[in-house]
Amino acid sequence: MTLLVTGGRVLRPDMSVERADVRVGEDGRIDAVGDLADRNADRTLDASGSLVVPGLVNAHGHAAMTLLRGYADDKPLDAWLQEDIWPVEGVLEPADVAAGARLAAVEMIRSGTTTFADMYFHVGDVADAVADAGLRARIGHGVVTLGKDAEAARDDFETSLAVAREYDGAADGRITTAVMPHAPHTVGTEFLETFVPRAQEAGVPLHFHFNETPAYAEEIAAEADVRPGAYADDLGLLADDTWVAHGVHVTDDEIDLLAERGTAVVHCPASNMKLASGMAPVQRLRDAGVTVALGTDGAASNNDLDLFDEMRDAAMLGKLAADDASAVPAEAAVEMATQGGADALGLPVGRIEAGAPADLAVVDLSGPHLTPEHDPVSHLAYAARGSDVRHTVCDGRVLMRDRELLTLDVDAVKREAERRARAAVERAA
Amino acid sequence: MTLLVTGGRVLRPDMSVERADVRVGEDGRIDAVGDLADRNADRTLDASGSLVVPGLVNAHGHAAMTLLRGYADDKPLDAWLQEDIWPVEGVLEPADVAAGARLAAVEMIRSGTTTFADMYFHVGDVADAVADAGLRARIGHGVVTLGKDAEAARDDFETSLAVAREYDGAADGRITTAVMPHAPHTVGTEFLETFVPRAQEAGVPLHFHFNETPAYAEEIAAEADVRPGAYADDLGLLADDTWVAHGVHVTDDEIDLLAERGTAVVHCPASNMKLASGMAPVQRLRDAGVTVALGTDGAASNNDLDLFDEMRDAAMLGKLAADDASAVPAEAAVEMATQGGADALGLPVGRIEAGAPADLAVVDLSGPHLTPEHDPVSHLAYAARGSDVRHTVCDGRVLMRDRELLTLDVDAVKREAERRARAAVERAA
Repeated sequence: MTLLVTGGRVLRPDMSVERADVRVGEDGRIDAVGDLADRNADRTLDASGSLVVPGLVNAHGHAAMTLLRGYADDKPLDAWLQEDIWPVEGVLEPADVAAGARLAAVEMIRSGTTTFADMYFHVGDVADAVADAGLRARIGHGVVTLGKDAEAARDDFETSLAVAREYDGAADGRITTAVMPHAPHTVGTEFLETFVPRAQEAGVPLHFHFNETPAYAEEIAAEADVRPGAYADDLGLLADDTWVAHGVHVTDDEIDLLAERGTAVVHCPASNMKLASGMAPVQRLRDAGVTVALGTDGAASNNDLDLFDEMRDAAMLGKLAADDASAVPAEAAVEMATQGGADALGLPVGRIEAGAPADLAVVDLSGPHLTPEHDPVSHLAYAARGSDVRHTVCDGRVLMRDRELLTLDVDAVKREAERRARAAVERAA
Repeated sequence: MTLLVTGGRVLRPDMSVERADVRVGEDGRIDAVGDLADRNADRTLDASGSLVVPGLVNAHGHAAMTLLRGYADDKPLDAWLQEDIWPVEGVLEPADVAAGARLAAVEMIRSGTTTFADMYFHVGDVADAVADAGLRARIGHGVVTLGKDAEAARDDFETSLAVAREYDGAADGRITTAVMPHAPHTVGTEFLETFVPRAQEAGVPLHFHFNETPAYAEEIAAEADVRPGAYADDLGLLADDTWVAHGVHVTDDEIDLLAERGTAVVHCPASNMKLASGMAPVQRLRDAGVTVALGTDGAASNNDLDLFDEMRDAAMLGKLAADDASAVPAEAAVEMATQGGADALGLPVGRIEAGAPADLAVVDLSGPHLTPEHDPVSHLAYAARGSDVRHTVCDGRVLMRDRELLTLDVDAVKREAERRARAAVERAA
């Protein structure tokens, strides 16, 4: 089934905006970008008054945590995890994770995200949600060995490896995987020494939390007497297909190390603010040549999965962090949410160009809050929001048309998530 | 014309949420809140699945700057003002200000704001926009004497006084006024000495920018060898009907002084981030007993006028500023956007209770991004956005019903703003 997105303007990979149509071939790939008034296709999507942008890439999150949106706000990271989040996560059943991941999928499609990275558990249920929603994702099982005996810790890592093998290439190739040790300070050195080489021999990328708070770096230093960057690098964790979340408290040496190793960083500005984790040095990371992507983190620390918020937050917080209003300009924010995310996850999306998978968001730029239009890229970063997305396309398939979701039953997803969230909280009490 | 808002829940002044209807009497005031199934009214507004909240209060801004939304981003405050903003503002005609203020009114009504404060020029055109839109506002003429000769400086202050007298009580009493010296460092001491007492004798409140950047405090110190707080207080500027914008760089002594004088502070988190001005100590201000309100500032440094963004930004940035994730919780953010704004502006709005003017926003809480609902107040602060507002009511009059604006022609307003913005930028070039 071919598709023609007509009558709009297109955001090109160099961040220029031009009047153009986009044609999608039978294989779900973009086959032409330009004035295609004379071309036909099985279906068309109207993009008049709109800007066609690459489907956004949410490069770090925990989709099923939508169930805990607004459950426990306004608490510091550790207390929040230990007193509120982990007790409920401890009672989540596979069907709960399925319900939360479906709700996340609905929310992401409605706000123009077509690819997401997911670190969670009951990963098969996340994969089913991705397949049914029509989204693209790199998913994995998060490993924590802290507080576990050696056998349970090894089992957890084996699960992460098994899951990465099992689901890689699922959903017609839209699902890829990674092995996901939670963080250097929550996974024992001996397990990293054993399992990281096995993941790398299998060609599976790694994803983990890195320097989210100063305390985490202190925990590593107390044990190994080095910064987390050097510690992770010694264990071979910093590779060019590794991408790490947060990178808030990084030294200049660590920034250089990340750049040298080709390890990407996912900036999660809303989560870092809400948990008072700190301000990532996004401009310095970019200046050093580190690939920076954007992530929502879980909905419990955000509290939504709208990457338009993340673009705005990244541009704004990046200025504060640099003490420079010219840092992290609008173009950088848009680039991080598209190309940066694609590059971090090693996926050939994030750019509208012939040959690329047709992952697109069509953004209505005609709203009063987007008037006048001095600069459409500024609007994407600072003034547009997820609710301005009219159509969402992933792998050439229309997932949302004129704000109507075509792949999931929104009301049923909402009901199931509401019901399961309440039941899980009651079980945990 | 009486009005019944039925079938929803209501946010009460103590931040509790209860199932209740709201009835509005002929005088535009709330005459009952509760189970009013047996009462009738000339009109009804459906609030099922929704939360009725006080119309939001945008306590600092420059409405007509919507014309410059996205015109010059990613620049430091002074360069941005001098190279970009002031040259265009210098060529704005009354009809330009009218067009920009109308666009701002559309945007505010669509995002649940019913009251705003405005510091600009061509104030009569702002007043007309307020009257036509059906909004409530406290407006004034901003005075800058820096770079002006004495006569022009005095004329500017006389204009501010005359405008405050002329428009107070306009638009059926929905318009009130203030005298608005731009900032302590942009208005000469001799003029403040002359005109501030005249404003106070006339019973007109004062509004000005206060400690927005460290440089501004340094300019005062260089001239008067005191902190801006002591300087302003010596001149009588800090009164209990004064409200100041920003208050980013305030010392503990200045916080105590603001609390003692009853002077309110309008926190503008988005503007402070975008211009890299800094992080206001919102939790400390609140702890000291200072009334804190929220403001969008002008659209050029935001880039929208959606107070839901400001609530989220205030809660998040407040945590970073305090290095404490429990600072500025959701309830505080909602309180600042409603009661705080009303108290800062000295207007009897911001609380849904019998006898208060019926200024209401009906927020649809059924969206996927607001599911599940563990805590509706958390959703208001962290996950809802202006586009979730279904109906907006000001002074008992329905300004927006089911997202349809009833007082202004949105398409005409957009066209006029687009045309005038382009023409102004061309004239300034």
